[in-house]
Amino acid sequence: MDSAAAIGVFDSGLGGLTVARAIREALPAERLVYLGDTARVPYGTRSAQTVIRYARGCGSLLARHGIKALVVACNTVSAVALDVLRVELDVPIVGVVEPGARAAAAVTRSGRVGVLATAGTVASGAYPRALAAIDPRIEVFARAAPLLVPLCEEGWTSGEVPRLVARRYLEPLVACGIDTLVLGCTHYPLLRDTLERELCAIVGAPVPLVDGSRATAESLARLLSERSLAAPPGGCGSLELFVTDLPDRFTEVAARFLGRPVEGLQVRQVDLG
Amino acid sequence: MDSAAAIGVFDSGLGGLTVARAIREALPAERLVYLGDTARVPYGTRSAQTVIRYARGCGSLLARHGIKALVVACNTVSAVALDVLRVELDVPIVGVVEPGARAAAAVTRSGRVGVLATAGTVASGAYPRALAAIDPRIEVFARAAPLLVPLCEEGWTSGEVPRLVARRYLEPLVACGIDTLVLGCTHYPLLRDTLERELCAIVGAPVPLVDGSRATAESLARLLSERSLAAPPGGCGSLELFVTDLPDRFTEVAARFLGRPVEGLQVRQVDLG
Repeated sequence: MDSAAAIGVFDSGLGGLTVARAIREALPAERLVYLGDTARVPYGTRSAQTVIRYARGCGSLLARHGIKALVVACNTVSAVALDVLRVELDVPIVGVVEPGARAAAAVTRSGRVGVLATAGTVASGAYPRALAAIDPRIEVFARAAPLLVPLCEEGWTSGEVPRLVARRYLEPLVACGIDTLVLGCTHYPLLRDTLERELCAIVGAPVPLVDGSRATAESLARLLSERSLAAPPGGCGSLELFVTDLPDRFTEVAARFLGRPVEGLQVRQVDLG
Repeated sequence: MDSAAAIGVFDSGLGGLTVARAIREALPAERLVYLGDTARVPYGTRSAQTVIRYARGCGSLLARHGIKALVVACNTVSAVALDVLRVELDVPIVGVVEPGARAAAAVTRSGRVGVLATAGTVASGAYPRALAAIDPRIEVFARAAPLLVPLCEEGWTSGEVPRLVARRYLEPLVACGIDTLVLGCTHYPLLRDTLERELCAIVGAPVPLVDGSRATAESLARLLSERSLAAPPGGCGSLELFVTDLPDRFTEVAARFLGRPVEGLQVRQVDLG
């Protein structure tokens, strides 16, 4: 494997760009190739069999770019398809669930961990499973928060609406006595400030938030360093975007997730069939 | 065709139950067979080709029940697949877009009609097309409102959150000078009161709302009467539910859309392959 090769990142849509952003911040010398399967988003409502089929398509396309590592920046795929991808693709793979779970396990003191995620991720039981594997004493309280994704995509991330929505989702978790909250969806880092502030307001003290996107970037950094695959320092890195639906529909939302304008970025459409 | 036969109703999910409910209210003697393709919801993000394929599957399954009429209680399918279904199925078919458009055209005085719908329906251009066919002078201002479906599914239909969200979506439409608002998604009747109140508060006077679900029920009633297919009066009618994903996941949401508990209703799972 060549340390100068790119890192592949894929998601069912554009939420995974928060992971790409966190990787750019943690590993600025790396070249990233991001694939958003925007024509088939969301995966959360598909059967496991379909998600595996889609994930294979995304993984193989990125593998053809000669990548040195693959980041599955999608909770749904991470929940059901990592094992298949690990068998079929000859690159090290990092998902988003396990890093988030590991970070939460390191932070919690009471062993009561809250998770906000999409209905699909909650139904998959991926976070309770990952946390039980790390420490079976940890109790997980997972709550589906269907309004958070559209809030992020609309760009309504501060102000009264997201504040009241956050409060409504957080109160039952606080009532369960959680002392750590995992953002179990790649969209949610956009709402991080609002969630953090509301959680603090309800509890009366700061509660640590685990941002799965950042935890994933850190996990990737460790993996690259362990396998001597990190890009030579000093390079300026890059980010290339592929989407499966018309690219022009997504530049505004993409900019929101990336935290920067997409002008100057290459955004190309690919066909996964 | 037998007037004692059932009426088939289908939607990508459960939103179409607001149409089933409106039909039950308008035509209490009719037997309804409802199919919600809950395993493949939402259709809005699928290609037209895929939506047509799914719609064929739903239509044929209901046709095998010997139905006397088919109601396509889904905006996405109504936008792209009605013609195909009309050619292939030997029953009269009613969609949701055309009745809503017709009702709006009858109500508007200024000829400026607002439409709230999902991003998919807005992108399809179905409402502007349907209204232009009725009266080319009508100007349509369609606005995607991605937060409204999750609000309905969460059951957050009154109070501060839906009020503020409604205001945010309605203000730009009011700025366009609309005098009529079409609820262009089968979920939205659950938010009717909130939308009506906020619209009145912004404008300073009541603005007529067109509920596509009710307009569709009225359209069906006319069709049955014209073709002498109405059920003999005095019968008590019925509603049978089929879903394509596990039925137990949906009873709560289904009850919300139907406006009554689903206990006592038959809910069965079918496989559309």
